[in-house]
Amino acid sequence: MLIEQLLSQIQPLNSSAMQAARRRQDQLTKPSGSLGRLEDLSVQISGIMANPLPRIREKVVLVMAGDHGVVQEGVSAYPQEVTPQMVINILRGGAAINVLTRHTGARLVVADLGVAADLEPHPQLIMRKIGYGTGNIAHGPAMSHFQAEACLEAGAQICLDQIEYGMDILGIGEMGIGNTTPSAAIACAITGFPPEEITGRGTGVDDNGLRRKLSAIRKALEINQVNPRDGLDVLSKFGGFEIGGLAGAILAAAAHHRAVVIDGFISTAAAMIATSMEPKVRHYLIAAHTSLERGHHLMMEWLQVEPLLDLKMRLGEGTGAALAITLVEASCKILGEMATFAEAGVSGKGDL
Amino acid sequence: MLIEQLLSQIQPLNSSAMQAARRRQDQLTKPSGSLGRLEDLSVQISGIMANPLPRIREKVVLVMAGDHGVVQEGVSAYPQEVTPQMVINILRGGAAINVLTRHTGARLVVADLGVAADLEPHPQLIMRKIGYGTGNIAHGPAMSHFQAEACLEAGAQICLDQIEYGMDILGIGEMGIGNTTPSAAIACAITGFPPEEITGRGTGVDDNGLRRKLSAIRKALEINQVNPRDGLDVLSKFGGFEIGGLAGAILAAAAHHRAVVIDGFISTAAAMIATSMEPKVRHYLIAAHTSLERGHHLMMEWLQVEPLLDLKMRLGEGTGAALAITLVEASCKILGEMATFAEAGVSGKGDL
Repeated sequence: MLIEQLLSQIQPLNSSAMQAARRRQDQLTKPSGSLGRLEDLSVQISGIMANPLPRIREKVVLVMAGDHGVVQEGVSAYPQEVTPQMVINILRGGAAINVLTRHTGARLVVADLGVAADLEPHPQLIMRKIGYGTGNIAHGPAMSHFQAEACLEAGAQICLDQIEYGMDILGIGEMGIGNTTPSAAIACAITGFPPEEITGRGTGVDDNGLRRKLSAIRKALEINQVNPRDGLDVLSKFGGFEIGGLAGAILAAAAHHRAVVIDGFISTAAAMIATSMEPKVRHYLIAAHTSLERGHHLMMEWLQVEPLLDLKMRLGEGTGAALAITLVEASCKILGEMATFAEAGVSGKGDL
Repeated sequence: MLIEQLLSQIQPLNSSAMQAARRRQDQLTKPSGSLGRLEDLSVQISGIMANPLPRIREKVVLVMAGDHGVVQEGVSAYPQEVTPQMVINILRGGAAINVLTRHTGARLVVADLGVAADLEPHPQLIMRKIGYGTGNIAHGPAMSHFQAEACLEAGAQICLDQIEYGMDILGIGEMGIGNTTPSAAIACAITGFPPEEITGRGTGVDDNGLRRKLSAIRKALEINQVNPRDGLDVLSKFGGFEIGGLAGAILAAAAHHRAVVIDGFISTAAAMIATSMEPKVRHYLIAAHTSLERGHHLMMEWLQVEPLLDLKMRLGEGTGAALAITLVEASCKILGEMATFAEAGVSGKGDL
């Protein structure tokens, strides 16, 4: 019910706000267009927020965690116990995403959507567990349609709460050992590219691990006959709970005029699910960076988004999103804080 | 005298600090190498600062201003009066570089090395004027060898003062109508590429303006027979005063173990002058971004530096440097603040 409602609320970007923002960019004391993608970003945010002078104050990076039955196939370089261990590391402030959100002034929100262990309650941890890890997609569906709806709703509700707390922009990230495998399956199903063009080494599997991963994805695609145009079906067949949660959060953000900064391979898969459900979602997306993971650029092409950064990163957790969010913030400050030629008494190009 | 002394002080990067930083990066709670260029940056800064756990607290962006006699050839889309007008705009806080240094928490330092007008004294403006604009390089040298030494020294002294005030890292930028023309001449002389492969539209000249610009650069290269291996000679033949000032600042920073974040086309030309004078300088350089200006990537190849950002910017003022400096800062925080696998009790790859 909530998801249906959100889908119906997602609008095209506000073109009059975008035109006003572009006009202002052309009057600021710089050669027109000379701030390149920063100018474009500010115009996109104007359209998203329906505001010709948008301000980004409250930045949130939302990290969702979940486990994956497909790790039984030997698809990851790390044991499954690392998922809860890393959630605890994040809650204690020791992970990369802690450092980068502190650095960029974003609030970090962590949610358990499906870790295969009971995490101790913690004031910073949102508990919305849909299950103790998904089913093994090499043998059947990751979850039921009911569970797929539940994780979309849980993610949407978490995002709606953040909007109520004042969130202006959402960065998304994830933690889940094995989750490049379902993400690759999602990307193969939706784009039609074969597994060998999408699948990479994730956290760093060796050649044998990569072969096992490819084999698991091929089996998953064969055994789960998905409808690639039905995002809910793709999600339920391949998972995971954290990916569905992120997709739900994206839908809620877009419905409420907030930009979503997507991170790497997994959060891009979540964005593909959300965009499959409502194509207008893509206009609310900002691609943080090109991940080193193999097929990531193909997924971004499908989404029609162009990444802001290329720093050879492949960590996830929202680390790329945390860095890119500060560029988005900068772009809106440029629009709002720079002097115009008239205000500054600077001669323009036409005055020569 | 000062410049000779600085040149003799520039050392190779500290390899034991770099090894210790790399070892620590491999112990942090992330797959080894998964933060890509952020990891490499932190290792470079360790080597530059001779410290395995470097911290970047005081960030400075230094903007030097100067005018150029070659504007008589009609090489710019804007009139020369824009140079002092923009310096005043910067002093009032209305330029792009003000917005971006406020955003990233860098201190902005502005110096007049050669504006062709008398600027009112201002508490934020460092006055080190070497002349009222350079000579027209299409007809002769930009400045005397004496003036070239003077602007290098002035720039070095400004940087040394900032180091005394606690500067940990230097970003450089410039303001000077017409200054892509001398920068292109410098790049042609040092790299050997012909003007048409280096020269772009600067602030946005039309086709006729571009033809005039190319013609001025060809004349400058012909009339001023430079020794491309002698940085001081290249500087005196092509200028400008702000470019020499930035080159001096780079030498002072490198001699005192500070990284230099170079910005766009003009500050890269300054870095080429400094690197011509002492090749070890290049190890102290961090390339902020690829400018849209035509030959910028060839100049960075000559310097053997790889840009961090590609945002289609071409404004100068240090705007790219201001954005990139925050990535460098983030890289050092990652190194210093993340938990190790042992500290966090997270299972490593070998534990599978």
